[in-house]
Amino acid sequence: MLAPKTQGPLAGLVVIDLTRVLAGPYCTMTLGDLGARVVKVEMPGQGDDARHIGPFVEGADGEQTSGYFFSVNRNKESIALDLKLDRDKAVLEKLLDSADVLVENYSPGTMDRLGYGWDMLHARWPRLILASISGFGQTGPYRTLPAYDMVVQAMGGVLSLTGDAPNRPTRVGVSIGDIAAGMFGVIGIQAALLERARSHEGKHVDVAMLDSQVALLENALVRYQVDGVVPGPIGSRHPSITPFGVFRTGEGHIVLAAGNDRLFTRLLDILGLERLSTDPRFIDNAARCAHPDELRLEIELALAAKSTPEWLKIFTAAGVPCGPMNDVAAVMKDPQVRARHMLMELPVSNDRSLTIAGSPIKFQGEILGDAQPAPRLDQHRDALLTELGLL
Amino acid sequence: MLAPKTQGPLAGLVVIDLTRVLAGPYCTMTLGDLGARVVKVEMPGQGDDARHIGPFVEGADGEQTSGYFFSVNRNKESIALDLKLDRDKAVLEKLLDSADVLVENYSPGTMDRLGYGWDMLHARWPRLILASISGFGQTGPYRTLPAYDMVVQAMGGVLSLTGDAPNRPTRVGVSIGDIAAGMFGVIGIQAALLERARSHEGKHVDVAMLDSQVALLENALVRYQVDGVVPGPIGSRHPSITPFGVFRTGEGHIVLAAGNDRLFTRLLDILGLERLSTDPRFIDNAARCAHPDELRLEIELALAAKSTPEWLKIFTAAGVPCGPMNDVAAVMKDPQVRARHMLMELPVSNDRSLTIAGSPIKFQGEILGDAQPAPRLDQHRDALLTELGLL
Repeated sequence: MLAPKTQGPLAGLVVIDLTRVLAGPYCTMTLGDLGARVVKVEMPGQGDDARHIGPFVEGADGEQTSGYFFSVNRNKESIALDLKLDRDKAVLEKLLDSADVLVENYSPGTMDRLGYGWDMLHARWPRLILASISGFGQTGPYRTLPAYDMVVQAMGGVLSLTGDAPNRPTRVGVSIGDIAAGMFGVIGIQAALLERARSHEGKHVDVAMLDSQVALLENALVRYQVDGVVPGPIGSRHPSITPFGVFRTGEGHIVLAAGNDRLFTRLLDILGLERLSTDPRFIDNAARCAHPDELRLEIELALAAKSTPEWLKIFTAAGVPCGPMNDVAAVMKDPQVRARHMLMELPVSNDRSLTIAGSPIKFQGEILGDAQPAPRLDQHRDALLTELGLL
Repeated sequence: MLAPKTQGPLAGLVVIDLTRVLAGPYCTMTLGDLGARVVKVEMPGQGDDARHIGPFVEGADGEQTSGYFFSVNRNKESIALDLKLDRDKAVLEKLLDSADVLVENYSPGTMDRLGYGWDMLHARWPRLILASISGFGQTGPYRTLPAYDMVVQAMGGVLSLTGDAPNRPTRVGVSIGDIAAGMFGVIGIQAALLERARSHEGKHVDVAMLDSQVALLENALVRYQVDGVVPGPIGSRHPSITPFGVFRTGEGHIVLAAGNDRLFTRLLDILGLERLSTDPRFIDNAARCAHPDELRLEIELALAAKSTPEWLKIFTAAGVPCGPMNDVAAVMKDPQVRARHMLMELPVSNDRSLTIAGSPIKFQGEILGDAQPAPRLDQHRDALLTELGLL
């Protein structure tokens, strides 16, 4: 039997992780951040597909490590098992004897073909929770179709709302199609764990990437039904609040979010635009939402007088929500990001470290324990087999 | 004492909800979807700020309801309390006697000023979990600054990766700044509930919108460190996989995601581009990522021969991951979205219903119970006060 970890809110839990690439690994990384012990089962030889996606870091020993894999697999142990071989299946089953949760992101039907469909799992390990994260879910007409991040961003409607113009499709710059599904997977698993404490039975959590995109649509469905107009991309504006977006300054850009009349009046005062406060085009949020371009022109003309850092100081002092547009380099230097321990430096090879994003789930007064870097393929085989009494 | 609900994985839990607008309400809606009883405490007279954000629906009785509020407040009960009045504080405290979780998204410091700081809450209700969702978190130099969705999208770096070109800032078309924080809030709350089952003590969950954006950056931090180039916006492409994006067809657009060599070869065969299979510019994923524009040109020339629906049929039959770019109207008609019960029709007034997105957290073999529409301000006052023995 595997001993669970003893630190963190999910201490005591063992997760067996059959997932690849992003949605599943993001889910199990989050469980590991919270204290679960995560054992990643990978295909011998090649391992998780993400190990073959760049950028690659070469260590002094010549070993190549995928920075992509490294970013989303911290705090996991790796063992290589070929689930088509009886010998390796026996090892997986030993692992499942210790497990609270099994997470997989194969195409629906694959687990059945491997002999680990939900009915079999539930009969043999009634307390085990199975979480399946897939493109379209375990049910419905598209269930067996393949899906990747971009496919579900596009099919779920988020892409139709993002960008400058309808004919310039723009991807969300991070893989929100995968990550949202991974996060909803964590939510479903934890809910099933809470239920299990009462029922003493596991459940099958079924999270689809497409469903997860639809769940992010916020008020777009309702806007379409109420206004009768299909919402399209609107650049850097907010659909229902104005002014709320990115504006050009004398040098660079600034985000301004004057979400109510009080903040709008303050914004006008600061910009020397008091004359607009009684202008019927801008008299309330509804009027401003109907005239966003006219308002932008007035604001940007006024903002041209100073640079972004100067305006940030002024708006911050006045309590108007504002911020810089940080690129990744600026994020890594940001004093708040650093103060919140949102950057985590971990060794990627015998002579180099890389900084990755930390966990955003903080419990006040506690500092997370030391994190372990993403494992090499099969790194923990001997230790795991020994612990299971198989070596 | 309030009786918890009896259906769903979070049955047995009572959540008191002081949150406004989006991040907090999304968090508590998710808890409610899973079976927790959620009591929303709102300011008398005006209620949650989101009640004043459009689009608005007017009922036959002339009552205006915010479609924005309606989208993210299902399955909640509403009571209006002024937390500056002793009389209303006494009611909140009665509610907390029954509560497992208190969720708030005030600026840090506000709960202390109201007399409900963590130390006081923890001393009086040691099992209570407090979840605070804020722009920048309860610690660090920016903790007291105001933040909205756009501000953290920009400061956290996601905006720097989204769009066509560095000088055309493009917002993610949904409020991922708020929603991601709401989802991490749920994860933190459920983790604290699981820990409480062992420790019998509540925790203070501290989730920041900015932290949550950094946690979405996936491999962008590592790309910057390995390549030495600050990642910028790249339109509809994927940064590390090619071809993976939106392509123009003879009529419309299609998403193609040929994530490995096998799928790429199949794609070339279908498009009659076999000659490219030995082209050194496209020989493997690394080479393709270095020549995305040349590859796009070849693919779009071939795609011009047919319309999107024709290509979807062909690529789907061949097992190449693909999909249409659905706008919100198309999402609402999608057979998979409907089969997964991702659309939920609820009455918004005495003569009209609206469809909102359902919960993406499915437990196979179970259909979610009936949902209740978002409450009118103070709708449940009498029922709640009666249940508490105060009326």
